Amino acid sequence: GGAARLIDGKAIAAAIRREVKQHSEALIASHKVTPGLAVVLVGARTDSATYVKMKKKAAAEVGFHSIDKTFEESVTEEALLQCVQELNSDPSVHGILVQLPLPKHIDEAKVLESIRVEKDADGFSSENVGNMCLRGGKPPLAVPCTPAGCIELLQRSGVAVRGKECVVVGRSNIVGMPVAHMLQSMDGTVCHSKTAGLPAHVRRADIVVAAIGAAEFVKGDWIKPGAIVIDVGMNTKPADTAKGFRLCGDVDFDAASRRASAITPVPGGVGPMTIAMLLKNTLNLARHAAGLPRLPLRAE
Amino acid sequence: GGAARLIDGKAIAAAIRREVKQHSEALIASHKVTPGLAVVLVGARTDSATYVKMKKKAAAEVGFHSIDKTFEESVTEEALLQCVQELNSDPSVHGILVQLPLPKHIDEAKVLESIRVEKDADGFSSENVGNMCLRGGKPPLAVPCTPAGCIELLQRSGVAVRGKECVVVGRSNIVGMPVAHMLQSMDGTVCHSKTAGLPAHVRRADIVVAAIGAAEFVKGDWIKPGAIVIDVGMNTKPADTAKGFRLCGDVDFDAASRRASAITPVPGGVGPMTIAMLLKNTLNLARHAAGLPRLPLRAE
Ligand SMILES: NC(=O)C1=CN([C@@H]2O[C@H](COP(=O)(O)OP(=O)(O)OC[C@H]3O[C@@H](n4cnc5c(N)ncnc54)[C@H](OP(=O)(O)O)[C@@H]3O)[C@@H](O)[C@H]2O)C=CC1
Ligand SMILES: NC(=O)C1=CN([C@@H]2O[C@H](COP(=O)(O)OP(=O)(O)OC[C@H]3O[C@@H](n4cnc5c(N)ncnc54)[C@H](OP(=O)(O)O)[C@@H]3O)[C@@H](O)[C@H]2O)C=CC1
Repeated sequence: GGAARLIDGKAIAAAIRREVKQHSEALIASHKVTPGLAVVLVGARTDSATYVKMKKKAAAEVGFHSIDKTFEESVTEEALLQCVQELNSDPSVHGILVQLPLPKHIDEAKVLESIRVEKDADGFSSENVGNMCLRGGKPPLAVPCTPAGCIELLQRSGVAVRGKECVVVGRSNIVGMPVAHMLQSMDGTVCHSKTAGLPAHVRRADIVVAAIGAAEFVKGDWIKPGAIVIDVGMNTKPADTAKGFRLCGDVDFDAASRRASAITPVPGGVGPMTIAMLLKNTLNLARHAAGLPRLPLRAE
Repeated sequence: GGAARLIDGKAIAAAIRREVKQHSEALIASHKVTPGLAVVLVGARTDSATYVKMKKKAAAEVGFHSIDKTFEESVTEEALLQCVQELNSDPSVHGILVQLPLPKHIDEAKVLESIRVEKDADGFSSENVGNMCLRGGKPPLAVPCTPAGCIELLQRSGVAVRGKECVVVGRSNIVGMPVAHMLQSMDGTVCHSKTAGLPAHVRRADIVVAAIGAAEFVKGDWIKPGAIVIDVGMNTKPADTAKGFRLCGDVDFDAASRRASAITPVPGGVGPMTIAMLLKNTLNLARHAAGLPRLPLRAE
């Protein structure tokens, strides 16, 4: 077979960000509501600081205002909860994002739970997750960003999910579980794999989503010819580069791309989608606050 | 092969009801808290009236007190919401159950959503569903009764789920979706099947849960020899009886029981479990109100 078509996450994320910007400008014009994203950062981890900087820059680019709350590593849980309460009752804030991980002395779950569901920019609250899983009820106000990004990548590459056999490798709250639910709600048949027979599951799949966190775990010969591969993994492997390693996904890209019909690269696939979907969530929360319907996160 | 072992839902439900009774008596003795179940019935449907009568009788048998709220078919949505609010703030009520279906002029979702999560005896609220789906967070205060009953049937028949390939046919909010989640959280690999290739999925399964609502839809030769079959269906089929029909499940019992290693009959399998789990949920809500931990709904 030939080489798989690349699914260009960078381009698709850019398109979503342009759409968010247009809708944001329209919301400011029609309702005088500027979407506001509050970002809470604790401690001095450089990776967290980098993510927060990227998120704030992206928010500014689409015309959102953003609110910064930075705390020393030593902040008390009480002070952090107090901060979330203030953001909860600040009408200029539509989305609250607490950058994880938090220091060990703070109960992460407790802090996340204290965010009002109407401001849950990451879509991690039990109520939003429940509404995502329930059929025919209220749609969730926000959905987890990376999984929503995977769905956008499929949709905007013209992949129909209905009737397809989908294998999601991984079942974390942040990626695997929500992706599996969304695929199923789009009438895919989901084999959620964590078994001795994993390769056999993958071999049957029309759509493979890998979210394991293990470098090149999914082998090329596990991929059914013509399948679609969404690689969520962000791992490193030893390489002959200046740094001594290079970035890679959960799928053996070179081998898989010779069998798949379309595949996301790492980097440049799922990665850029996460921030794009965070912006879309925040816009939707601002629309909700203005009494407007959300922009659908997938074809429903 | 020989005939499958029958999984006796009547006996298992009776055992659970005995356990609930013991815990209820202990709670009354230690905390002076008598579990209270409020049952809201609207209109004159005979099936709904029968279910409500059975639930109230079962509650009395395990030492709960129950509160009756009955309304004419013509009741307004407002009056019903008012009733739920009163039950929400009545400290003697630990579980609230609104018997479905409600008349057409009432927004069912709105009424169900108005039940406080701490009193959600059916486990249908988005927050409880979200907590059921999220790993490692707060366990849900209550879980949907029929799915929880399926899990108890497996556990109390000595079936280990870990590593097994499970097929759940059906994905309703009430049965299929929650069963699939619970099996997955018990380390089963869930193939949630709604596809052209359904028989092939079922043929691979070590555990089959059928929740489709179609008489004898799952054929005997779809069952892998030695598989475990949980049949949730409650259907009728034409038969040479006084009534002209008889009760049957979603699985062709006669043929399947010649291949399965264990199977639930209809009636007498999943059916009796639903009320048993409703009692267990209500007990847990009363324990929660008294500051006690819930009794686990499955091995976790
Ligand atoms: N924007 C982006 O691009 C993002 C990328 N990621 C990347 O995605 C990957 C996954 O992230 P995340 O979900 O948070 O990771 P987690 O570690 O939280 O979850 C990994 C999942 O993979 C499963 N798993 C691990 N090993 C195996 C195996 N041998 N066979 C089958 N299943 C296995 C685990 O199973 P079990 O449940 O049994 O433990 C678990 O469900 C990582 O590489 C991460 O860096 C994550 C978020 C955002
Ligand atoms: N205590 C007890 O014993 C209880 C018994 N039941 C019984 O369980 C059965 C299911 O109930 P419930 O979940 O409420 O029913 P629903 O009608 O709400 O859901 C049926 C599910 O089966 C799926 N389905 C229907 N036809 C097919 C098909 N040909 N192939 C694959 N999937 C199919 C549907 O798919 P889709 O999502 O695409 O529509 C849907 O997800 C019924 O017989 C009911 O009477 C229910 C509750 C309690």
